[in-house]
Amino acid sequence: MIKVSVMYPNSPNATFDIDYYCNIHIPMVSELLGSVVKGGSVDFGLAGGEIDEKAPFIAIGCLTFDTVEDFKTSFDPHAEEIMSDIPNYTNTQPQIQISEVKL
Amino acid sequence: MIKVSVMYPNSPNATFDIDYYCNIHIPMVSELLGSVVKGGSVDFGLAGGEIDEKAPFIAIGCLTFDTVEDFKTSFDPHAEEIMSDIPNYTNTQPQIQISEVKL
Repeated sequence: MIKVSVMYPNSPNATFDIDYYCNIHIPMVSELLGSVVKGGSVDFGLAGGEIDEKAPFIAIGCLTFDTVEDFKTSFDPHAEEIMSDIPNYTNTQPQIQISEVKL
Repeated sequence: MIKVSVMYPNSPNATFDIDYYCNIHIPMVSELLGSVVKGGSVDFGLAGGEIDEKAPFIAIGCLTFDTVEDFKTSFDPHAEEIMSDIPNYTNTQPQIQISEVKL
C-alpha cells in the first residue's frame, strides 16, 4: 500500500477553506480517480509540538493506493483539472510526498 | 479526534532505521501512552510528487487520540524517555504537528 500526502505549508498569510476542501475538492478527486483510491484522510493543523506553536502545515490530505502505478495512471489524466482547483481553497502551494505504508 | 504527526525531514545525509522504528520505538510509545492511543500509522518516504524527486520526509509517524489533553497527559510524563530513543533510529530532528482529523 502506498500513500500520497498533500501537505499545505503554514505561514502567517496562509489561507485554507477546509469546508471547500472536504466537501468539494476531495469528493471531486475521489470521483475522478475512481476505485483505485483505497482510503483517505484530511487533517487540519491545530498546533506544533507545543500547543502555542503554529502547525507546520495548515492542512494535510492523504490518499492511499495499492501501488504507485495505480496513483500515476489514475491521477495523471486529471492532473490539470485537480491542480487548477487548488486556488479555490488555498493561497499556498502544497508539498507532495509518496510513501510506503509500513504500519 | 486529533492526530499527532511526527515528521522526519529528508536530506542527503538523513538516516532512518525503519525496522527499529516499527518494531521497537512505536511499540514502546504505544505501551507507555496506553489506551488513550486510538490508532496510528507509519509511512516511509519513497518520492516527492514526481517519482524522481526526493520525499520531503524520510518517515512520518502518526498517533490519534480523542483529545489534545489525552495526548498531553499521556505523553508528557514519558517525553524524556521517548525523545531520548530518537538517536537510536535517526540522525534527524522531527517536526511535530497536532491536527484535527476532519475526514
